[in-house]
Amino acid sequence: MTVAIAFDDIETAARRIAPHAHVTPVLRSRSLDELAGCTIAFKCENFQRVGAFKFRGACNAVWALTDAEAARGVVTHSSGNHGAALALAAKTRGIAAHVVVPEGAVAAKVAAIRAYGATVHVCAPTLDARDEAAARIARETGATLVHPFTNPNVIAGQGTATLELLRETGELDALIAPIGGGGLIGGSAIAAKRIYPQIHIFAAEPEGAAEAFESLRRGVRVTDIEPDTICDGLRATFGEINFALLREYGVEVLPVSDAQTIAAMRLVFERMKIVIEPSSAVVLAAILRHRERFANLRVGAIFSGGNVDLDQLPW
Amino acid sequence: MTVAIAFDDIETAARRIAPHAHVTPVLRSRSLDELAGCTIAFKCENFQRVGAFKFRGACNAVWALTDAEAARGVVTHSSGNHGAALALAAKTRGIAAHVVVPEGAVAAKVAAIRAYGATVHVCAPTLDARDEAAARIARETGATLVHPFTNPNVIAGQGTATLELLRETGELDALIAPIGGGGLIGGSAIAAKRIYPQIHIFAAEPEGAAEAFESLRRGVRVTDIEPDTICDGLRATFGEINFALLREYGVEVLPVSDAQTIAAMRLVFERMKIVIEPSSAVVLAAILRHRERFANLRVGAIFSGGNVDLDQLPW
Repeated sequence: MTVAIAFDDIETAARRIAPHAHVTPVLRSRSLDELAGCTIAFKCENFQRVGAFKFRGACNAVWALTDAEAARGVVTHSSGNHGAALALAAKTRGIAAHVVVPEGAVAAKVAAIRAYGATVHVCAPTLDARDEAAARIARETGATLVHPFTNPNVIAGQGTATLELLRETGELDALIAPIGGGGLIGGSAIAAKRIYPQIHIFAAEPEGAAEAFESLRRGVRVTDIEPDTICDGLRATFGEINFALLREYGVEVLPVSDAQTIAAMRLVFERMKIVIEPSSAVVLAAILRHRERFANLRVGAIFSGGNVDLDQLPW
Repeated sequence: MTVAIAFDDIETAARRIAPHAHVTPVLRSRSLDELAGCTIAFKCENFQRVGAFKFRGACNAVWALTDAEAARGVVTHSSGNHGAALALAAKTRGIAAHVVVPEGAVAAKVAAIRAYGATVHVCAPTLDARDEAAARIARETGATLVHPFTNPNVIAGQGTATLELLRETGELDALIAPIGGGGLIGGSAIAAKRIYPQIHIFAAEPEGAAEAFESLRRGVRVTDIEPDTICDGLRATFGEINFALLREYGVEVLPVSDAQTIAAMRLVFERMKIVIEPSSAVVLAAILRHRERFANLRVGAIFSGGNVDLDQLPW
């Protein structure tokens, strides 16, 4: 499978989302650099609108629609950040958004999706029911389906975080981002490898949801792992297009345990004074666990989001 | 009492600390602006070195010493951020620091002071014992006493945060900072009133440690209130010079309850994705409680620090 997403698509996405998305800060920490034995530039997508990088891809997908398409709205299935991101992106264009969420989804997240003006459709908590519901709504309303991580405009939009990061840091030796569905790492790899072809791309993945790691090891896309991880943003089964991107760009997947993720998350709260979610903390956990891979390198690391339940911090 | 700290002293301090201190970011939040009914620029001293604005004043005091004075070191009493700040400031100049801490001080804070290379002296947990121990060390070693909030160089150093803030925001209608000992609000008022003479200066103070509020109300410095507040950085009894500055600059003190402070702190974690300590959160709590005073204004608010016990978040 060849992936038809080019660097130009990411530059186009950057121009398209500029009026709506934040240029998020790049933060550094002396004490974490000392701990890790390398210098890390953290791209802080926890400061992005809706609290996650997801707004970039959703916004690009919404603003890539023709006026006629846009008039019929957008639809997706997501109980997490992508649902809220598509809802807000649709609001920026003044169009309808439908978000399919499974029964039992976290009430606060569903409330956030509604607060951004989207129509919420509850379905049975299975992959089939979710896909069916989204397809039915698309059929009935003419809304465009915006998949959370296989949609090419979503992937191109996610790549804009790396464009901004490298513009600020200059040349880096390595880039690391979390992998769940694979939209962020895919867009990041396309952007980074074009700007600095020798850069090494790493994906941080929870051991309890190691589909990407297993897929690369076996040479075939693995989709049957039952996720068991605290990283609620990284439980998705990644798609064909995302697997193809991993192989095309030589992405190396680094597994981390939840205990390592929790320790890294706490370090970030303490040393950097910022709030990140576990799905972000995996990148620091991976750098600390696989420190020999990063020794003395200039590393870019993407903190994907900061939507964490403050009543249930994991330490 | 006339206070002999001028705007020039703050500009001198800014130049003096520039090689050592961070220029901290100014962050904004649409959702907090909507909630508050005004537009707020938050100066984020939680991102300052040692995690608090205290590094500015300590650094200015240390670098204002002559070489001969510096060679004899510095001494202070503080179980909190000022102790760590003076320890690190002394380290930047390669000189000795002595920090007097009361028996029973938080072990993590004492460890931090030691980690920056200072000598820790434990004394009985009374104001007299603390003052005596510091005076004795000054006498015996020739070290210069750097008081946490009455030292003019410390006050001038704290004012540099406002210089940076106003340089970034342009004209503001109001500025609010926490008041404990009064060093931060004093320096802030001197800086802000010179740059924008019509700006209104507010101090946010816990109801459970309302010495500044009571002092202004009664027209005489009140020092006998037993502090009872979650804001561990705001329990100090403020000094004569600090009281004089409040009066000279027409600072208005706004009291807040601990419950309001805790709610504001949580809002900042959730909406801004940053870690602040209760002593910082009082500024947002005061804006939300006294919202009629800030309606539609352009407000600058100083988050003083982010050193909070993550095992005991107050909600």
